[in-house]
Amino acid sequence: MPVGTQATVKAVSPEDLYEIGSSIILANTYHLYLRPGHEIIKQLGGLHPFMNWGRSILTDSGGFQVYSLSKLRTVSEKGVVFQSHIDGSRHFIGPEEAIDIQSSLGADIIMTFDHVVPYPSDYETVLQSVELTTSWALRSLERKSNEKQSLFGIVQGGTFEDLREMSAKQLVDLGFDGYALGGLSVGEDKETRGRVIRETIPFLPENKPVYLMGVGKPEDILEAVFQGVDMFDCVMPTRNARNGSLFTSNGRLNIKNAGYADDQRPIDENCGCYTCTNYSRAYLRHLYLAREILSYRLNTIHNLAHYCRFMTDIRNAILEDGLVAFRSDFYEQRKFDCN
Amino acid sequence: MPVGTQATVKAVSPEDLYEIGSSIILANTYHLYLRPGHEIIKQLGGLHPFMNWGRSILTDSGGFQVYSLSKLRTVSEKGVVFQSHIDGSRHFIGPEEAIDIQSSLGADIIMTFDHVVPYPSDYETVLQSVELTTSWALRSLERKSNEKQSLFGIVQGGTFEDLREMSAKQLVDLGFDGYALGGLSVGEDKETRGRVIRETIPFLPENKPVYLMGVGKPEDILEAVFQGVDMFDCVMPTRNARNGSLFTSNGRLNIKNAGYADDQRPIDENCGCYTCTNYSRAYLRHLYLAREILSYRLNTIHNLAHYCRFMTDIRNAILEDGLVAFRSDFYEQRKFDCN
Repeated sequence: MPVGTQATVKAVSPEDLYEIGSSIILANTYHLYLRPGHEIIKQLGGLHPFMNWGRSILTDSGGFQVYSLSKLRTVSEKGVVFQSHIDGSRHFIGPEEAIDIQSSLGADIIMTFDHVVPYPSDYETVLQSVELTTSWALRSLERKSNEKQSLFGIVQGGTFEDLREMSAKQLVDLGFDGYALGGLSVGEDKETRGRVIRETIPFLPENKPVYLMGVGKPEDILEAVFQGVDMFDCVMPTRNARNGSLFTSNGRLNIKNAGYADDQRPIDENCGCYTCTNYSRAYLRHLYLAREILSYRLNTIHNLAHYCRFMTDIRNAILEDGLVAFRSDFYEQRKFDCN
Repeated sequence: MPVGTQATVKAVSPEDLYEIGSSIILANTYHLYLRPGHEIIKQLGGLHPFMNWGRSILTDSGGFQVYSLSKLRTVSEKGVVFQSHIDGSRHFIGPEEAIDIQSSLGADIIMTFDHVVPYPSDYETVLQSVELTTSWALRSLERKSNEKQSLFGIVQGGTFEDLREMSAKQLVDLGFDGYALGGLSVGEDKETRGRVIRETIPFLPENKPVYLMGVGKPEDILEAVFQGVDMFDCVMPTRNARNGSLFTSNGRLNIKNAGYADDQRPIDENCGCYTCTNYSRAYLRHLYLAREILSYRLNTIHNLAHYCRFMTDIRNAILEDGLVAFRSDFYEQRKFDCN
């Protein structure tokens, strides 16, 4: 799902996302709590009317961003005291506060406040993190009162098979509307990530969505779908777009390249997005080099349309029982991609 | 008309402009000549298909920007040798080159290459500039071969009444499709500008469009319309938008102000643009402070819609013979504006 850190998916409007076919976006609790503040958003009716978005929203709990963005964190059983990365002001968020903030924001899917540890961490550290995560998950469940919101638990456990199993089982015992795999895409290699996913998913219920947080590249998504993952979020399509790196059915293309200076073709001849329907590589290269604001939007529309179509194709392949053939085709089309 | 220096009106798409009601945009010959180059644009079918714009385009001749942006200019009877402000490379543009470049770009209205002098300049300097401008205007006419393009002459003459008269008469003798007032909005005071416009327009034919280049604020446009001006271009609506300065029927509003933090109202309750229809001041303030790309687009859509409606209102007032009353109302509505 497209990621909207500041109550907007960077560089595009809700209508752009509707046209692309996005059905859900992610908004970051940490960012919105600090700016403009969840109380203001609540006062204005919640995130949906605030940002003029008529489809689904998922908010993360803030746990990962408190860990990765803020300064001087102090973690206790109660929660986390941290300093804002914007102005250094002191704040406290615990599991109850995370639920309350997400209730004010009014997202459709909300997440438990999890305890995040660096990668790699030793067994003892990760064990404590799993225990804290489970205890916070329980408190999140107890705090939640908004019946319209679905609450997902976040499985931790680092790269340790038994800790992932423990975390998954404890969360499933508590009972959530969905389960996320946290603590991945944080620096571990691809094989390790694949192994952790493979070892964790059997302990999660088949009839609940499984959400792999922070992933990823198309090939990583495809491989995770094979393991049973249903949902993903990633900044890659939007961030790459702003850097001129565009996804095509044959791999990635860097719009800066001089070879595109007079190239009349669209980014991807197999793409029917607004950008590919109306603009040449030559024009998009020009806008990019001139640092025009429209460049960010047109590139983002294309990359998001590429990802949305990719997810639709995967869903269709699953429905038609053709995912294995879909994977072969996927790698075949990209065999000349050097990115 | 909205200004598109880099083959785009900053921060908005063609569809945004269609919805706003823009019927013509301005593109800068100097910028496009340097980047991506008029030859590439010609090869791709001209500016209209290149930038996906289906309505009218006016290109300036490059004269003003060679003067204001480039380094180390050497002016001769032949034309101007200058260094690119981007990479310092040396270039030559004379009246013939300006016509050829504009022919490659394929705009609907093109301008003669005029000779620009600093403000203020002494009588002798301005006299020479008028003579050169007329000689270049003649050569522009002789060079022009593209029958689909309309060519406007640019009246110079600084703030000297007799030189403006001389320049206007010489250009009218040559015969153009329209006449622009150049060398204004370059630092002179409002009264001087008003006087020059008033003293020049009687020498221009009533049945040809008169175009005041680089103006301006709504009140300046309104006053110039009273003098007989038909066309304007200015960066003000788009540049102000990107700086958070938004036009309303009661004057300007700075979206940064803390007072808008929880303000549910649109920018202007009398405005029906996309931005005012869908977003609150609170959200726009948040986007602006978060430096979100969408902020630039939403603010620009509003300011351009404001200007377009303003021009439509002026045209309607003229048709209904109510321009005097329109002006009274205009100042009445803005009497509390301190900007």
